[in-house]
Amino acid sequence: MAPAGGPRAKKGILERLDAGEVVIGDGSFLLTLEKRGYVKAGLWTPEAVIEHPDAVRQLHMEFLRAGSNVMQTFTFSASEEKMESKWEAVNAAACDLAREVADKGDALVAGGISQTSLYKHHKDEARIKKLFRLQLEVFARKNVDFLIAEYFEHVEEAVWAVEVLKEFGKPVAVTMCINPEGDKDNVTPGECAVKLGKAGANIIGVNCRFGPQTSIQTMKLMKEGLGAAGLKAHLIVQSLGFHTPDCGKGGYLDLPEYPFALEPRLVTRWDIQKYAREAYDLGVRYIGGCCGFEPYHIRAIAEELAPERGFLPPASEKHDSWGSGLSTHTKPWIRARAKREYWENLLPASGRPFCPSLSKPDN
Amino acid sequence: MAPAGGPRAKKGILERLDAGEVVIGDGSFLLTLEKRGYVKAGLWTPEAVIEHPDAVRQLHMEFLRAGSNVMQTFTFSASEEKMESKWEAVNAAACDLAREVADKGDALVAGGISQTSLYKHHKDEARIKKLFRLQLEVFARKNVDFLIAEYFEHVEEAVWAVEVLKEFGKPVAVTMCINPEGDKDNVTPGECAVKLGKAGANIIGVNCRFGPQTSIQTMKLMKEGLGAAGLKAHLIVQSLGFHTPDCGKGGYLDLPEYPFALEPRLVTRWDIQKYAREAYDLGVRYIGGCCGFEPYHIRAIAEELAPERGFLPPASEKHDSWGSGLSTHTKPWIRARAKREYWENLLPASGRPFCPSLSKPDN
Amino acid sequence: MAPAGGPRAKKGILERLDAGEVVIGDGSFLLTLEKRGYVKAGLWTPEAVIEHPDAVRQLHMEFLRAGSNVMQTFTFSASEEKMESKWEAVNAAACDLAREVADKGDALVAGGISQTSLYKHHKDEARIKKLFRLQLEVFARKNVDFLIAEYFEHVEEAVWAVEVLKEFGKPVAVTMCINPEGDKDNVTPGECAVKLGKAGANIIGVNCRFGPQTSIQTMKLMKEGLGAAGLKAHLIVQSLGFHTPDCGKGGYLDLPEYPFALEPRLVTRWDIQKYAREAYDLGVRYIGGCCGFEPYHIRAIAEELAPERGFLPPASEKHDSWGSGLSTHTKPWIRARAKREYWENLLPASGRPFCPSLSKPDN
Amino acid sequence: MAPAGGPRAKKGILERLDAGEVVIGDGSFLLTLEKRGYVKAGLWTPEAVIEHPDAVRQLHMEFLRAGSNVMQTFTFSASEEKMESKWEAVNAAACDLAREVADKGDALVAGGISQTSLYKHHKDEARIKKLFRLQLEVFARKNVDFLIAEYFEHVEEAVWAVEVLKEFGKPVAVTMCINPEGDKDNVTPGECAVKLGKAGANIIGVNCRFGPQTSIQTMKLMKEGLGAAGLKAHLIVQSLGFHTPDCGKGGYLDLPEYPFALEPRLVTRWDIQKYAREAYDLGVRYIGGCCGFEPYHIRAIAEELAPERGFLPPASEKHDSWGSGLSTHTKPWIRARAKREYWENLLPASGRPFCPSLSKPDN
Repeated sequence: MAPAGGPRAKKGILERLDAGEVVIGDGSFLLTLEKRGYVKAGLWTPEAVIEHPDAVRQLHMEFLRAGSNVMQTFTFSASEEKMESKWEAVNAAACDLAREVADKGDALVAGGISQTSLYKHHKDEARIKKLFRLQLEVFARKNVDFLIAEYFEHVEEAVWAVEVLKEFGKPVAVTMCINPEGDKDNVTPGECAVKLGKAGANIIGVNCRFGPQTSIQTMKLMKEGLGAAGLKAHLIVQSLGFHTPDCGKGGYLDLPEYPFALEPRLVTRWDIQKYAREAYDLGVRYIGGCCGFEPYHIRAIAEELAPERGFLPPASEKHDSWGSGLSTHTKPWIRARAKREYWENLLPASGRPFCPSLSKPDN
Repeated sequence: MAPAGGPRAKKGILERLDAGEVVIGDGSFLLTLEKRGYVKAGLWTPEAVIEHPDAVRQLHMEFLRAGSNVMQTFTFSASEEKMESKWEAVNAAACDLAREVADKGDALVAGGISQTSLYKHHKDEARIKKLFRLQLEVFARKNVDFLIAEYFEHVEEAVWAVEVLKEFGKPVAVTMCINPEGDKDNVTPGECAVKLGKAGANIIGVNCRFGPQTSIQTMKLMKEGLGAAGLKAHLIVQSLGFHTPDCGKGGYLDLPEYPFALEPRLVTRWDIQKYAREAYDLGVRYIGGCCGFEPYHIRAIAEELAPERGFLPPASEKHDSWGSGLSTHTKPWIRARAKREYWENLLPASGRPFCPSLSKPDN
Repeated sequence: MAPAGGPRAKKGILERLDAGEVVIGDGSFLLTLEKRGYVKAGLWTPEAVIEHPDAVRQLHMEFLRAGSNVMQTFTFSASEEKMESKWEAVNAAACDLAREVADKGDALVAGGISQTSLYKHHKDEARIKKLFRLQLEVFARKNVDFLIAEYFEHVEEAVWAVEVLKEFGKPVAVTMCINPEGDKDNVTPGECAVKLGKAGANIIGVNCRFGPQTSIQTMKLMKEGLGAAGLKAHLIVQSLGFHTPDCGKGGYLDLPEYPFALEPRLVTRWDIQKYAREAYDLGVRYIGGCCGFEPYHIRAIAEELAPERGFLPPASEKHDSWGSGLSTHTKPWIRARAKREYWENLLPASGRPFCPSLSKPDN
Repeated sequence: MAPAGGPRAKKGILERLDAGEVVIGDGSFLLTLEKRGYVKAGLWTPEAVIEHPDAVRQLHMEFLRAGSNVMQTFTFSASEEKMESKWEAVNAAACDLAREVADKGDALVAGGISQTSLYKHHKDEARIKKLFRLQLEVFARKNVDFLIAEYFEHVEEAVWAVEVLKEFGKPVAVTMCINPEGDKDNVTPGECAVKLGKAGANIIGVNCRFGPQTSIQTMKLMKEGLGAAGLKAHLIVQSLGFHTPDCGKGGYLDLPEYPFALEPRLVTRWDIQKYAREAYDLGVRYIGGCCGFEPYHIRAIAEELAPERGFLPPASEKHDSWGSGLSTHTKPWIRARAKREYWENLLPASGRPFCPSLSKPDN
């Protein structure tokens, strides 16, 4: 049931963040729907919103139930070659699906745009901004609640995206896919954050490409950069759901396991509770995930921060804190696992003794 | 569209197997729906069929789309303490959901029963059989296409289950959760298979608790046992979706990672293609998965055996064989991954250098 | 200083074992002297006793100092192709060196013969026994204290060796290089032990090719075999100094790391204390090492069993029990390592995250 | 045989380096003699030169035979608390032993001093220099060929050491035990090198504490620093013989495996050939080892650089290049290992599947 006054009466993203609330993002659509059979790896396009809307709706529902306060539209990323004739219909349908599910709970709809494939060929600001504006028009028409510019390797292009999105008059979040070494032009995370803040972004951070530990490190640097420049902005982190201590600046794309053998790197729910805690302690208040994040990972964020937020997400009706649901198991050695100390200290084995623990990135 | 004559005109399980066809099972409901937020670990009960039928239907749909020819009903396992008042309504609803989805494709509905929690306390054949019969009545009423007795640690109890299920007059499959060492009473896999065959089971094999490699080893022994006894039965394998070279007779339950830190052990699609090939070469024709098997793992079985079967599953419209969808990637080192040789030989890293590769089982 | 009455007054090997004393063997000559620059890998011959007697004497001294009660002669193994013209002079010199050092402490001299390269080509008992007898003559002339037939893959050939060595009238020990699966002709460890006992061997066990854990497992089976046959014999174990959980029947020769990259598998002193304790608890009283065992590993045997024996070896003047020598370190976190609990529970890292933990044996 | 004119006619260290020759250092005395039973871990003192001169002489001989051009005196390091009454006699005897062996081949004698334990308590330049001078007097009396100040964590103290050693009028080498992050006062490797060069050191580099890869990285920075400052100095690297990718600024002392469970980290001969090549390519011409380096590791340096130097070391008579000695093995799969490509590409397994690949440093 939507609260009286309807969904539009919900608090906006900035109202929440300004009030110090935690906003929980959602997780992986591309990789998760690839595993469910609705997205093609390599292409990574969202035509499922039209072809198989039930599958997309269901995933939105799972994230909502897990505690997400944001339904990101499952739309095309801004690569001209991908933007076939059907893109506009797909993106419009994606907005409707996100809105439909958001209205079933306490979630906002965010329209998202990404870096373009144009940028690496020529840095034609006008042409790239035009491409962003094209997408923005659909989001404006569908009246999303706020906007996210995400997955940028070059801060210059991210700034352009922010500038376009600001035209809409709604709050703008922006996330780069960089590690502590900085963006592809060697602009440090701190400098990136400052440039984005000056461009008017309301919420600044990182998403994708790097695992939880790396993402937290980058956020520290972004925060320091903003602080040193005397800029105020909310912080967002939407990490990869895989451990990537061995990847270089290119991120997990360059790891030999990408994209079809990443399983051994998949994070556990306990890894994510640690990540949520570290993000919170750092002052990040918009915490979500990216590729690899399944609904139970989002629930782990919501559970870790339940003491601060004062409530658990709906999906916690099927999950007892820190494995305590095992306390009635018939085997005593499994009952012994029903506690936080056990899971926090476990070093999980891969079951793959012929495999290494780290890889050398290609490239 | 159901073929003319309606779903009842589909070929039955034995018709298919007798004709030498491959039958593809489905995958994990409990663990998969736990990660989606609909099943509680520890309890592992299927009330979601009533509480969240869309979520259960969606998972059935994904397996169907991935190539499953069997929709197993997502019903209570036969533990008296779990069989609360609502079990009958849940099981009936589960049958309806399975049938609804099966009728959208070339799949049969299988009703399943499991070992009881009674058996370990007392071996009261009458009481246990009564419990099995109670469940069978619902399956009979809902007219499932065939029956599966699964997840048995003791062959004696499995024989009782087969005896009850045979009363229904439909084909009966039976799978034990044992490794090459044999059942909990040290009955070897070969002897187990023989006892089950003599009890009238039409399809015999293993499911759950052990990873692909171990399951194939056990199937070799079952096949040899049946052969030596001059018995004919079809073979079924529904392995765990985790690597478990280090687990003892108790299976993955005894591994310290169970059930909340199994991620690094999760099998890749390539592991499953290998498993499907080995199972096929061994003569197993009913090939599916158990806990840990996601839709894309089932699709991997269907893709591996597409040459023999002559067709691909619907979900392969979103998956190019052996990673060939990467052949148009902009980065040359990622294009280099677009081939079978690459994925077959990859030794995927865990990204966890502080973790071991094997664990010592508890107990 | 030799005790009054001279070295010949020392207690013999059987006197010691019959009295329940622990006899500590020595360690690796071939691999250790290869690393020191005096033995050629591949060839593995002992001409260093003539070319560089100081180097060989020094290694004998180190083992004596570490607690060895046996100086094995560093002589040619019985491969005809290796037995060049100089072999007799080398073997005689090896006996003199062993005796020289043995007389400086409480050690006996043991002459050793190994399996022949002939056996795999033809099983010509007469010819093989002649080759053994040829070597025995030197040992007899040099009056070694007892004899060891070691490194046999086929129990038949080991029996022939025992039969020849018994002609000398001194005690005979015999060790096979087999794992729990048995010898190359599938004779089980228990059956091997029985055949060797019936052939007159006084001390029976295993040496080389397999790591500590495997060797202890094989000894359990040998002991059970002897017990079941009602035979009495003393037990000997001289394990490899490398961890080999992944090797097949061919032993560590078949591991890809043999012989030039075995370093990561090298056992620690704590591994050897565990091995010594397990051997002792099993009833083995002649405990030593083979390839890979350095002097400090032998000292670890002597230290582990010091409570039972009532004394420490000379080299313990430079080694405090269980790392307690670290208790005065300036860094508190290193002082924290000065205890048994620390070293017993440590899981040492390889520092090689790009390497696997196990290998697949060649062959 | 010493060349005509006696050992003093040998070319000095600077003559060699100025001529572009490679000078090969020696390896580990403390850790190697600890394993042989003559040095006590924790204390790490060299009284063995008096107590067991044969053992020390033998190790010098092995390094000489492996190709070392430098015999470092096995003397006390400058910790006041260790400098008991006997230190002067020990150090004098150590000089005699080193000279005795050096005169048997083409090697020079180097007297060495190390950082003091005083420095961390108070930075009393006069008192510390007095302690250095005290030791220098013995080296001067024994007329060593050159001097090495080694194992310094603070460049300030290293500078003092160089200043004292320069008083003797012989060439001075200096090595710090730092990683690319710099010394304990955060002076970068480049700055350290410059300070040492300005203090008059003729040869500058690193030793101990960090494995080959880290040491090479630090040398790159030192070389860059010297180059940028327009300073000329010869370069020296004497790395640890263990892999330590996971250690922090404190080096391997802080790894949980130090000092009694470092075995799995031990470098292979192939690792050292790679290290020697990288050092050479970087322009380092004095290449040796530190803790963990056994004689065969030194031989690996000499073999790798034999093409440049034009000769092999004596110990290569017992070692065929790149495993080629295996080419006559009876087993074809072992013959297949007789080539460079095999060993260069091998990823050696630890045989320890329950252990991690990396550790977290203490402290």
